[in-house]
Amino acid sequence: MIYTITLNPAIDRLVFLEEPLAKRKNNRAREIRYDIGGKGTHGSYAMSKLKVANLALGFAGEQNFAKFTQILAEKAISHQFLAVPDCATRESIILIDPDNLGSAMVTEPSLKVSVKEKQSLLTFLAEHLKPEDMVLVAGSQPEGFELADLKELLTVIQKAGSFLACDLSDEALQLAVELAVDFIKPNEFEIEALIDGQQTIEEKLADLAEKITCIVASRGSKGCLCYYGGNQYKVTAPKVSEINDTGAGDCFVGSFLATFYQTQDIEASLKMASACAASKVQHEDSSFFDVTEANQLIHSVEIQIEEENYAISNRKSSPS
Amino acid sequence: MIYTITLNPAIDRLVFLEEPLAKRKNNRAREIRYDIGGKGTHGSYAMSKLKVANLALGFAGEQNFAKFTQILAEKAISHQFLAVPDCATRESIILIDPDNLGSAMVTEPSLKVSVKEKQSLLTFLAEHLKPEDMVLVAGSQPEGFELADLKELLTVIQKAGSFLACDLSDEALQLAVELAVDFIKPNEFEIEALIDGQQTIEEKLADLAEKITCIVASRGSKGCLCYYGGNQYKVTAPKVSEINDTGAGDCFVGSFLATFYQTQDIEASLKMASACAASKVQHEDSSFFDVTEANQLIHSVEIQIEEENYAISNRKSSPS
Repeated sequence: MIYTITLNPAIDRLVFLEEPLAKRKNNRAREIRYDIGGKGTHGSYAMSKLKVANLALGFAGEQNFAKFTQILAEKAISHQFLAVPDCATRESIILIDPDNLGSAMVTEPSLKVSVKEKQSLLTFLAEHLKPEDMVLVAGSQPEGFELADLKELLTVIQKAGSFLACDLSDEALQLAVELAVDFIKPNEFEIEALIDGQQTIEEKLADLAEKITCIVASRGSKGCLCYYGGNQYKVTAPKVSEINDTGAGDCFVGSFLATFYQTQDIEASLKMASACAASKVQHEDSSFFDVTEANQLIHSVEIQIEEENYAISNRKSSPS
Repeated sequence: MIYTITLNPAIDRLVFLEEPLAKRKNNRAREIRYDIGGKGTHGSYAMSKLKVANLALGFAGEQNFAKFTQILAEKAISHQFLAVPDCATRESIILIDPDNLGSAMVTEPSLKVSVKEKQSLLTFLAEHLKPEDMVLVAGSQPEGFELADLKELLTVIQKAGSFLACDLSDEALQLAVELAVDFIKPNEFEIEALIDGQQTIEEKLADLAEKITCIVASRGSKGCLCYYGGNQYKVTAPKVSEINDTGAGDCFVGSFLATFYQTQDIEASLKMASACAASKVQHEDSSFFDVTEANQLIHSVEIQIEEENYAISNRKSSPS
């Protein structure tokens, strides 16, 4: 089974305005749409679309729990979120001017989790995880969930022997590297921040690959670099006309992990992930992608392999 | 009993921003507060604060019904709203810059009521209303609730013999005048729109008072003109330092009707209403007022009475 963990999800409220947003006036909305915000749930969405069984876990506020789970259900995401009493899952309000003239985003403060809920999540994982499972921990942490809590969470998953994928940023990403998790997906800026010294990005990645089974370094529309099994894979994404690249990374991670979990074939996984992300950026929605479209785009993904581009030492095994 | 009817309520979501609202960036909110939006519920709030029993009625969307009734409960408003399936009560999102540098309001489309819900409201009223009751119909109409529906609603209330107060605008106000309801509260612009011709505002009001028991014409911070029982009452509001006048009219209507229902004393009612509204404008919140403060301000309300300022003909009686 694959589990995704979204510690700090959001409900995206897309507000389509009749006229461009202006202060000191009543701005009328012509339509409201809802979507799930939160990298783990986006991963689950991509996995579910590829028909790979998974369960979305995490914390969600009790006050708008029904709304939250309704959106998950509409997106066919299997879920088992823990309800946090006396608070609401934060909303991201996205105010969209007509004719794509621009938008403004307003994000609310996160919910606050207590020791009780943190313990419930750890207990669930300790009781359910098996070595053949895969876990994706993605996105930011809510209030009350400190770096020490994240360390405890990642450690519980590692103790269970499950394949641990992390899509994290800043000090959380740094922690994932220190704990030598099985998968990370840093962008170029994050790689720069991870290692000091006079190395090139490729040298830095090769160093990281000494302890991390699989690294995908995203380079936006150019594609990505992947380090796995002693090889470097340079992936060139299909050329498509981009409408909205928000959520492309989450789509990549979800479809990559789903394919890798099923096939353990790194090239097939990179191709499917690049194709799904290339489909995603052609759609306005921040999570939607078309599987049929992706299956056509897969033939346009180019992969250049450089074997033994970096030293191999004490590398961990792929998930069984 | 007093009933208030809010056909198209809203949930006010007050979003306090960390920095002034700007497009093309992530605007972080430091705090979210909720309030009820909807003139009838604001009337009920004022009545309840003055300890006059009342019941707030109307339509509210099923999807956020719990949130809606929770806010009503927090404001100690007795309520019996009809849940409209498959839709949400609209939210008014008020984005507030720090240090009161300005705000932007975004209003969502209203819910849509069906024949079934409209009939349920009419049935409830027909079964419960008694001649000694008072009903306030206030605010806009939701989608699916046409002017003909409003006419049917007002007629059912009039058939029950209850005192019918309307705080309506535009063609709905015009309809209330045509049906000769018992109370209206137009502002100066609305009076201009109600009657054609070369009359002064006072002449126009005197004409309206021929068929409407009680008219309160608001003049903002200057006070109001009231026509009742053949007299004209010129009410001068207490001078206070105004912070936020939003909701002052609803506060006036609610406290006026509550006092008038209990005492049938027009002067006492006008004084209490002016004092409550003068307290309201000194507070940031769009509904809160301080009853103790109002009871002090009541002594600063000045009323100038001009008897038989206009012809009396066929005037209706006040509520028993």
